[in-house]
Order: sequence, then structure tokens, then C-alpha cells
Amino acid sequence: MERPRHQGMAKNTCMRWRLPLVCLLWEVAMIVLFGVFVRFGAEADAHWEEEKREMNLTSDIENDFYFRYPSFQDVHVMIFVGFGFLMTFLKRYGFGAVGFNFLLAAFGIQWALLMQGWFHSFKDGKILIGVENLINADFCVGSVCIAFGAILGKTSPIQLLVMTLFQVTLFSVNEYILLNLLHVKDAGGSMTIHTFGAYFGLTVTRVLYRPNLEQSKDKQGSVYHSDLFAMIGTLYLWMYWPSFNSAISDHGDAQHRSAINTYCSLAACVLTTMAFSSMLQKKGKLDMVHIQNATLAGGVAVGTSAEMMLTPYGSLIVGSISGIVSTVGYVYFTPFLESRLHIQDTCGIHNLHAMPGLIGGIVGAITAATATEDVYGKEGFIKAFDFTGAYQTRTPSIQGGFQAAGIVVSLLMAFVGGAIVGGILKLPIWGDAAAENCFEDEVYWEVPEDEESDAYHMHNPDKPASP
Amino acid sequence: MERPRHQGMAKNTCMRWRLPLVCLLWEVAMIVLFGVFVRFGAEADAHWEEEKREMNLTSDIENDFYFRYPSFQDVHVMIFVGFGFLMTFLKRYGFGAVGFNFLLAAFGIQWALLMQGWFHSFKDGKILIGVENLINADFCVGSVCIAFGAILGKTSPIQLLVMTLFQVTLFSVNEYILLNLLHVKDAGGSMTIHTFGAYFGLTVTRVLYRPNLEQSKDKQGSVYHSDLFAMIGTLYLWMYWPSFNSAISDHGDAQHRSAINTYCSLAACVLTTMAFSSMLQKKGKLDMVHIQNATLAGGVAVGTSAEMMLTPYGSLIVGSISGIVSTVGYVYFTPFLESRLHIQDTCGIHNLHAMPGLIGGIVGAITAATATEDVYGKEGFIKAFDFTGAYQTRTPSIQGGFQAAGIVVSLLMAFVGGAIVGGILKLPIWGDAAAENCFEDEVYWEVPEDEESDAYHMHNPDKPASP
Amino acid sequence: MERPRHQGMAKNTCMRWRLPLVCLLWEVAMIVLFGVFVRFGAEADAHWEEEKREMNLTSDIENDFYFRYPSFQDVHVMIFVGFGFLMTFLKRYGFGAVGFNFLLAAFGIQWALLMQGWFHSFKDGKILIGVENLINADFCVGSVCIAFGAILGKTSPIQLLVMTLFQVTLFSVNEYILLNLLHVKDAGGSMTIHTFGAYFGLTVTRVLYRPNLEQSKDKQGSVYHSDLFAMIGTLYLWMYWPSFNSAISDHGDAQHRSAINTYCSLAACVLTTMAFSSMLQKKGKLDMVHIQNATLAGGVAVGTSAEMMLTPYGSLIVGSISGIVSTVGYVYFTPFLESRLHIQDTCGIHNLHAMPGLIGGIVGAITAATATEDVYGKEGFIKAFDFTGAYQTRTPSIQGGFQAAGIVVSLLMAFVGGAIVGGILKLPIWGDAAAENCFEDEVYWEVPEDEESDAYHMHNPDKPASP
Repeated sequence: MERPRHQGMAKNTCMRWRLPLVCLLWEVAMIVLFGVFVRFGAEADAHWEEEKREMNLTSDIENDFYFRYPSFQDVHVMIFVGFGFLMTFLKRYGFGAVGFNFLLAAFGIQWALLMQGWFHSFKDGKILIGVENLINADFCVGSVCIAFGAILGKTSPIQLLVMTLFQVTLFSVNEYILLNLLHVKDAGGSMTIHTFGAYFGLTVTRVLYRPNLEQSKDKQGSVYHSDLFAMIGTLYLWMYWPSFNSAISDHGDAQHRSAINTYCSLAACVLTTMAFSSMLQKKGKLDMVHIQNATLAGGVAVGTSAEMMLTPYGSLIVGSISGIVSTVGYVYFTPFLESRLHIQDTCGIHNLHAMPGLIGGIVGAITAATATEDVYGKEGFIKAFDFTGAYQTRTPSIQGGFQAAGIVVSLLMAFVGGAIVGGILKLPIWGDAAAENCFEDEVYWEVPEDEESDAYHMHNPDKPASP
Repeated sequence: MERPRHQGMAKNTCMRWRLPLVCLLWEVAMIVLFGVFVRFGAEADAHWEEEKREMNLTSDIENDFYFRYPSFQDVHVMIFVGFGFLMTFLKRYGFGAVGFNFLLAAFGIQWALLMQGWFHSFKDGKILIGVENLINADFCVGSVCIAFGAILGKTSPIQLLVMTLFQVTLFSVNEYILLNLLHVKDAGGSMTIHTFGAYFGLTVTRVLYRPNLEQSKDKQGSVYHSDLFAMIGTLYLWMYWPSFNSAISDHGDAQHRSAINTYCSLAACVLTTMAFSSMLQKKGKLDMVHIQNATLAGGVAVGTSAEMMLTPYGSLIVGSISGIVSTVGYVYFTPFLESRLHIQDTCGIHNLHAMPGLIGGIVGAITAATATEDVYGKEGFIKAFDFTGAYQTRTPSIQGGFQAAGIVVSLLMAFVGGAIVGGILKLPIWGDAAAENCFEDEVYWEVPEDEESDAYHMHNPDKPASP
Repeated sequence: MERPRHQGMAKNTCMRWRLPLVCLLWEVAMIVLFGVFVRFGAEADAHWEEEKREMNLTSDIENDFYFRYPSFQDVHVMIFVGFGFLMTFLKRYGFGAVGFNFLLAAFGIQWALLMQGWFHSFKDGKILIGVENLINADFCVGSVCIAFGAILGKTSPIQLLVMTLFQVTLFSVNEYILLNLLHVKDAGGSMTIHTFGAYFGLTVTRVLYRPNLEQSKDKQGSVYHSDLFAMIGTLYLWMYWPSFNSAISDHGDAQHRSAINTYCSLAACVLTTMAFSSMLQKKGKLDMVHIQNATLAGGVAVGTSAEMMLTPYGSLIVGSISGIVSTVGYVYFTPFLESRLHIQDTCGIHNLHAMPGLIGGIVGAITAATATEDVYGKEGFIKAFDFTGAYQTRTPSIQGGFQAAGIVVSLLMAFVGGAIVGGILKLPIWGDAAAENCFEDEVYWEVPEDEESDAYHMHNPDKPASP
């Protein structure tokens, strides 16, 4: 990977047999494993009429499908259009951004249904799935999309699939430790999705450090229309984030509250992002990189606490702070990480997911630790934190401690897992491109000859005059 | 249509009086027919309070609106953004793709509300409509959008409206035969929407064969950004397909199950598409044409069976196969169809809708034929296949036979209907463009002078010749 | 503002301290006010279990969240993607269109939650919010997005924020007068959102008249791809408008009916828009400006009456007329307004919102005035118009009169408010650009150097070496 240019040119990036082999073997494995393990849950099974009677439900509308399906579809859009288009900002990596995101997410959700299923929906030797499993699979893959942001443009599709395989596995283990062993609340995934996903991706990109990456510096920027494509991703992430944070919360007030808190946090985040984006540029101009990314930090940062009684003004505070932290991160931390720590973070996920994810975990711990029966009501208190069964003696301050422990576990899993997976991805068999061919779709895609340029733009000797 | 270039130049493509006349007369007819026939169904009528009492419903949430409206909106997005943007891949036909799709769909849904209303929602001389009718109208128009894919860039807007008028009519007749006479299940429309729509469109494009189409070959490709616009369409179709296949299924488990099966099938389809796209190219590079289209075949291929107990692994199998078939189709069949059978299929609907639609019909027949009371439960079995009233003695294997008959009927309707409508569209009065002006927005649209090219890309001495 | 070019060049458009100051001060104010006033409503509060018992609700699905959240998300998309992308049609103002719309909407929804909360959700010194408040905040901001359309490209972000602050305030007062004092029905906001927002914006742009605007004439058009981006906005507005008009209607039949009426009206509107767009051009070609805008007039024009028993054919009539009026407006009125009345209306909101909004108010008044118990049913009649308590003696014809009064009040508020706010925005302290720099993103945004032109247009002798 650190070879000089003339050697780099010789790297074999041809995917012809490797990619099909991986995809097809994988899909066969999925079919076999699904055949052995996966069945419809009670609410999606044709025996539902009997189930309804047993559960004393009077109407089909009580099916979990109607509580969660709209949120599921919003989350689905976030994963495929949101993350996919957010990463199209690079001038010549739009196909890779949208296409590889599509590939790894479709690959990952199948594995996530199994992994999460074994941990959470396993009954009598079968994984019973319903709409909540689909949401959780999308969530799990979301953490891979985040990590993809760090290595965008620098890896082959096979590397992405290998990373997805391992990351989904580790995600599920980490999630199991947090939710089941530590009994931590994290409905919007500040810890499980964002903190874990981002630090995992940053560790991987550190291991895959490319000292000659400036050879493709000219392709690491955006063009006018690629920035607009990226705004499609930004806005869908921003608009649907209330669905993301409320998708798997308890029915009723918890889903309702999560949506409101997230809505407030995101609105505040836009304002502080714009403020700092303008303030930190010499000429006071706004920078699309900040608008595309830091405006979303508010959603990340209330991921854990949105379903709690964070209150609307609490959400505004959290959103405001995370917008500032994230924008400052783009201006000061990203260059520092690259030059000093050799962390090449293409999309700046450290600013959008890692730091706001940490904030989210901390805010969640504080919100849990300060919860009172007065604020939640007696029943609401127990329901919100699930203080039943083995956990009925847990107090808010202990819960806060466990929440904090969840952050630490997620970080450890990310660093150790990322280091190992990074090491695997460093093997010279995966077909990644040489440094001078990074951020370039031509390597893995049939790119149309830009006849538009012939027909409509012709030769262009003078560059545009800056106004 | 087969005239040499200099005659072609003389073709009158001016829409000034023809298009307004058709649109306005049509709209007046719609107003009159709606005035005579269309009223609100009980759940949308202000008498709903009384209805609720009669039906013993305790809550407004039992209104069908809340069971289906989120799915309706997703389907709506698929028809207008999904199909519209999927077809923007051509470098100079983006306005036509999105705009004509918009026109024909808006035109078609009105006629579909009437046609389907007469067949299915007619009571005491009135068509009573609700949200399910809106979904069905969108579905019906979906089959026209599919057929549009075959003739994209080669027809005038009036031809599209004429085709829509006839195709919606034939669709409704075919649907009536299948659903009411043959008592066939086809909630996601593998037969009624995809098989019928695609073979209809392919027959029409065969009749409209243009031997000189290579004169506009330079415009039949994509450019970098047009491929990204097309991915917007692809992703929205892909993400919302679970809503498409579940939108009109029975309340409860059937909707839930349809969404899960479709989700699984589509995920598998992405992997096999990527595998074969890479495998079938000499250099192993991925082809955006496949990613944009073949990844969707999995949704088509479970259209009939998604609401049945296909099971998640069954869905993976169907999705995997359809991705392979579709991708192979783009590489081998499309050129064959064009050179040997004179079928010029602009978007490759044969690969995306026709073959996967047939697969969907066959899988549906098999799934129905192999259904057992054991798998569905006694009640579930009757409910899933609606084996009540006149059909209470029908067995699964007989149902399977009828399902297969549904495929044959759909094909016959498509071939015969397509041949007749194609003949009508061949009349020299509709204002279609000459071969050398195909795939070119300038013919029917005010296209902005590409001043971007002046300001940013320099002089462009030859403006595109106005047609 | 009316200075000659060389002076204009000297205008200080630097936002470095002004924009951050406004944003940050504002956000601090919001946090304080939210802290003092805003709390969760009963359905989003953790005390919901107790509330459920008190209200005798048997299921969480009765939470208003499930009645309105899908519609809320659709409305959210309309505000941020719909309005944002609709305005990207300008060749060099895409960042400003999407970005400033994002800024002002995020800014405005916070203030709207407070303003509307004080008027409508104030209880025991607290504003209690739920999903309906989020929808109403989006609606309120929608009227600002409309006004933004008139001044697009000619104002600084600070001017937009100042305008938002005042317009949200006035909107809330006007809405209070209409809904509470006049007891007017306006669920889809023909009067409160469209008529008020559009005439407000037109008055502001009149006050801000720029006589030298032709200096930036070359940037006031579109390019090919910017028109496609704008179609994303158009289609999302068009598709989700049924959700917009039904989002805050009564549960059950009213929401259902609103969606159907809006669907019908919009479908008809597309046809008459296409007809007149073609008819009014010499060569009969379709104009993207009309397709992008006038197709939406049908949604505006049934805003007031959609939840009433307008009937599907009534909706077709209203939609047809509004499409014609709007298209004719673009061809004849917009140039007239600019040359004679000095109203420079960048997006043509007079045609898309002002006139159709008036039509909507009038149609609403007529539909209310002609309502009968026969058509609505005894209960339905009272429920539809809320003829209870102090209003139980109101007759339909009186209601029609009040509806008409609502139009007049909205117009007065718009003219007076717009004149005052326009005057404030004319102060030379807000950093707006000189006439020759209007419609140009470079003024307020870091714009990427269009290296694409170097690398791929220009002469491109070395194709990227295939790896």
C-alpha cells in the first residue's frame, strides 16, 4: 500500500472473480442459515388469528407492524439514500458512494438478522422475525455505513464486504453486552451504533494508513453538483432522524417523546453549525462540508436520551453543543488527526459520529442518573428503564453508572475490533487501488465517457473567474 | 418512421394544439364521469360516525386509512420519483423521463380510479373510493410506467397518453379476469402489473420498430451525473418495494409478512446482481445499468407470493435467482432482442419486469399449490387464499393451477393488446420525432441554453440544431 | 441597494460576525424560553400510562402519535426537501436554495413552537407539545419558505432570519384570529399558509425592489441538471401534498377525505398545466418552470376545502382551474408584475401560492356555505365544522361568510406585515449583495473550484489510466 507510484500502477484491482465469488458464496450461506434458523414471528405468521385470540387483541391494528412500519421505512431511507448520497460529495466517487453503500448494506442486513436474531429473538431453535428485527438489522448496518465514511474511496468492494462481515458480528456482540448484560438503554444507538461504528472505522482507517494519499488529492474534493447530491443525503438523514431514534422505543409515549426530543435537538444543531461554520472561515462564508455533516450531530447526540424525559429545552442544549463540537472538529481536529495521528477520515466521521456519539452516551448516562419517580410517574419510571425482574432494585444513579460503562465497552470493542479487522484488510489480496487511484470510480466501475463534455461543454481553456 | 434523415427532419413534432386538446378534453371527460360516478367510500365520508356505530368500531384508528396510508405514500413515491428518476439515466432525456412519467401517471390514475372502480367498488350506481382505491390506481399506472420504459425517448407525449388510456383499460380488464373470475392472488402484482405491463410495452415497441435508431446512438447513453439521478429512482423503488407488495394485503399478518419477504428478496438480489455484473464484464467492473435495474428484480419476483408463507429463506432464493436472470438478461438478451427480434427496449424492461414477473407468477403458483393447513393454521389458510363462499372447496393444487392460468391470461392480454395499441400508435398523426432526434429533450421541451457551459466550460459554437 | 455597479462591488457581504451572533443569541433565547415554557404534552409524557387510564384508552395505538406521525414526516420532507430543492433550479444558487431554506426553517420551527404554543397549547403556564405541534410548526415555517421564494437570491442569510422571526410571529397572530376568533376552518392552510405567506413575500420583495437586477440576469436561469434537481422538490411536494392537507384534520374520515380530495385535485392540475404550458409557447414545447410549479397549484387550492365534502369531482374541477390560472400567471402575470408593479418574484410564488391560495380560500368559503346536514349527516355536520359550544347556532352560510372574512384578514396581515418587515430589511446593515452578485452562491458560500471541468471537460487527452 505504501509503494511508489510505478508499483502502485501495477496493483491488481480486477474484481472479476473475487467479488462474484464472495457474493455468491455468501448468499448461499445465507440461504442455508436462513433455511435452518429464520421463521416468521407470531405477528407475521399466518397463525396470527390464533395468536390474536390468545393475546386478547381485538383488532389487527394492534399488530406491531402498525406501530413501527412507518418508522422502519424512514430508517430504511436513511441507510440507503441518507448514507449513500451523503457520501456522493466527492467529484468522482459518486458511483462508489451510492453503489458500495448499497452493496454492503444489503449484504450486512442479512447477516445482522441472523446475528441479532441469535442474541435476541431465538426461541425453540428458531429466529422469529418481525418488523422490529428489520429495523434492528438496518441499525446494525448503519454502524457499518458510518465506518465506511472513514475509508471512503480507499478500499475495494471486497474489503468492504469483509469489514461488514466482521463489524456486524462485533456490533451484535457489543449490543448484547450493553442491552442484555449491562441492561443499558440506547434506543437511538448513540453508543451501539455511533460511538462503536465511528471508532471502529477510525481504527480501521488508521491501520490502513496511506502515506502517499496526497497523490489523489485533486479528487478528494467536491464539485458543485456533487455537493447538491450530498445534500439529498443530509436532508433525508436530518428529516428522518426522529424516526431513527424512536423506531424501537416502547409503544406510546416513548416513541412520541423520542421524536419530539430529536426534532428539537436537530433544529438547534443547524443554527450552531451555521454560526460556527461562518465564524471559523476567514471570509465568513459557509462551508458545505459543515452543513452536510455537522447539522446531523444533534440527532446522534440525543440517541440514547431521546426516549427519556430529556425535555425539549434539554434537547436544544444538547443539539446546540453537538453542532458546535462537530463543526469545530471539521476545522481543527480532522487536519490534526490526519497529520499527527495518521487517521485519514474521508467523511469526517470523527466529527459527525464519534464525538457526538460520546456526547450522546454521556447525556444518556446523566439523564438516567437524574431520573426521578416524580418526573416519570411511578409506572412510567419502571417502564422507561425496564426496572423489572432482576433489575427491580436498580436505582437511577446505578443505571447511570451502567450507562457510562456501556460507553467504555463500546469504545474497547471498537478499538480492539477495528485493529484486528484493519489488520485483516491490510492483507494484499483484496484488490484495493493504489494511492493515486483513490477516490476514483474508474477503478471499479464502468464510467460513461463524458460525451456531455464533447457535445455541450467542448474545450475549456479558461477556468471560471472567481467573483 | 423509417424515412431517411432528410425526411425525418421534416416530421412535425409540434405539440401546440394536439397536446392541449387531448389533455383538456380528457380532463373535462374525467370531471363529467367523476361527477356521475365517484363518491367517497364509507370510511372517507362524513357519515363515518354512523358507520362506525354500525360496524361496532370503537376507535377512529380502525379506519382503513391508518392501515394503508403510509404504504400508499410509499407507493406514490415509487410511481412518481421511483420510475421517473430511474429513467433519467439518459444524458439528454431527463426532462422527458421525469416529466412525461409525471404526465402519464397523473392522467392514468384518474382513468384507473374509474375503470377499477367500475369493476371492484361499484355500488348502487356509484364508485365508492377510499385509500385502497388510490393505491390500486397507482398500481395500475405502474404498469404503464413499466411499458414507458421500453419506448422511452422514442414517442411523443400524445402517444404516451393514448397508450395510457388503452393500457389502463386493458389492465383493469385483465385484473378483473384474474382476481375475480380466476380468483387468483396477486397482491404485489407480479402478473397483473409486471408481466402484463412489460410484455405489453415490449409488444408496443416491437410494432414501433425504428430501423434507423442508431442515428441517435450517441444520445442513448448516460453521463456521470445522469447515472446518479437514476440511482435516486432505483433506491426509492428498492427501499419502498416492501410497501408496494404489502400495500393491499389483508390487515395484520399478511401485510407484515409481505414486507418481510420482500425485504429479504431484495437484499439477496443486490448481491447476485453485483456478482454477475462484475463476472460478465471482461475487466470485472460493475455496470451502473445492472445496479440501477437488476437489483430491483427481487421485488418483482416475490410480488405474488410475498403475502403467502414463502418464508424468509424462500425469499432469499427467489431474490438471488431473479438478480442473476435479470443481469444476464441485460448482458445477453437485450442485444439479442434488438438485433434478432427488432425489439428496442430502451430501459431493458424485459430484464427488470418481464422475466422477473414471470418468475413471480410461477413462484406464486408453486407457493399456493404447496400450501397446507399445517403451515397456515386452519383460519389462516382460509383467510390467506380467501377460500370462502364459492371458493370454499378449492384446494391448494387447484389454486396453483389457477395462478398459472393467470400468467397465461396476462401474457395473452399483453401481446394482443400491445399489438393493437402499437398499431394505433404507428399512425402518422401523433407527432413522434424522427430517428435522429430520439432521446433528445429539445424536441418537446424548452431546454435551458447551457450557459453553465459558457460561464464555466467555455464556448460551445454549435448549438444543438433545433429539430 | 440601487447603487451603480462600482459601488455595489463594495458592499460588505461578509457574514463572519453578524450571522454567528444572530444564530447564537437566538439559540440561547430559545433555550431559555423553552426551559421556562415548553413541556411534553400528555401523550408524550412518561405519565401516559396514567393518562391512558383516565381517558379510558385500551391501547397505545390510540396515542395521537400513530394518527399523525406518518403525515408529519411527509410534511417535514415537503418543507426541507420539497421547498429546498424546488428552489435549486437556478444555475448558481443551489447551495443558497437548499442551505438557506434549511437554516430559516430550522430557525423558524423553534419560534413557531413557542408562538403557536402560547396561542393554542398553553395550560397552567406551560406549552404542552406533541406531534400535532410539530406539524403546525412545520406548517408555519412553510409560509416562510413560500415568501423566501419571492426574494430567492437577493437577500443575505441574516435578512432571511429577520424575516423569519417576524413572519412566524405574524403568522401565529393571523392564524389565531382566523381559527380562534373567526372560527374558520383551514386545515390545509390555503389562507393561513399560502395566501398569507405569498402576499407577505410579494410585499417584501416589492419593498426591496432592485432596479438594476438585470445585471445578474445571466444567472437567473437554470441549467439542465439544476432543472432536474428542482424536479426532486416538485415531486416530493406533489406526492406528499395529500399528507399536508390531511395532517391536522380530525381523526378518521376527515383525514381520509382530505387525502383523497388532494390526490384528485393534483392529478387534474398536472393535465391542465401541461396543456397550457404547451399552448402558450409558440413552438408548443413544454416549459420546466410550469411543470415544476404550476402542477402544485392544485394542492394549494384545495387546502381549505379538502377536509370538507368537496367530492372527488369537485376536486378535479378546482385542480383543473388552478393549474390553468397558475400557468397563465407564469406566462403573463409575472412579467407584468415585474415591469409594472416592480415586484421581482424569483420563483413566481404569485402563481404557485398567491392566486391558488385565494382560490382555495374562496372554494373553502363556498363549500362551507353550501354544506347541508343531508350531505354530512347530523353528527358529521357538527363535527366537520365544529359547530359546538359558542358556535352551535352557526349556520353554513354564516360560516361561509366568516371563511371569506378569513381571506381578507390574511391579505391585510400580509400587506401590512410585509410592508413593515420589508422596511426593516431595507436597512443597510444586513449584508445583502449588490445587484450584479445576486443569484450567486459565491457571495455567501465556499464554492468548490469546478475542477471537474479541468479533469473531464477541457481537453482530456489522458484518460485516467486504468488500474
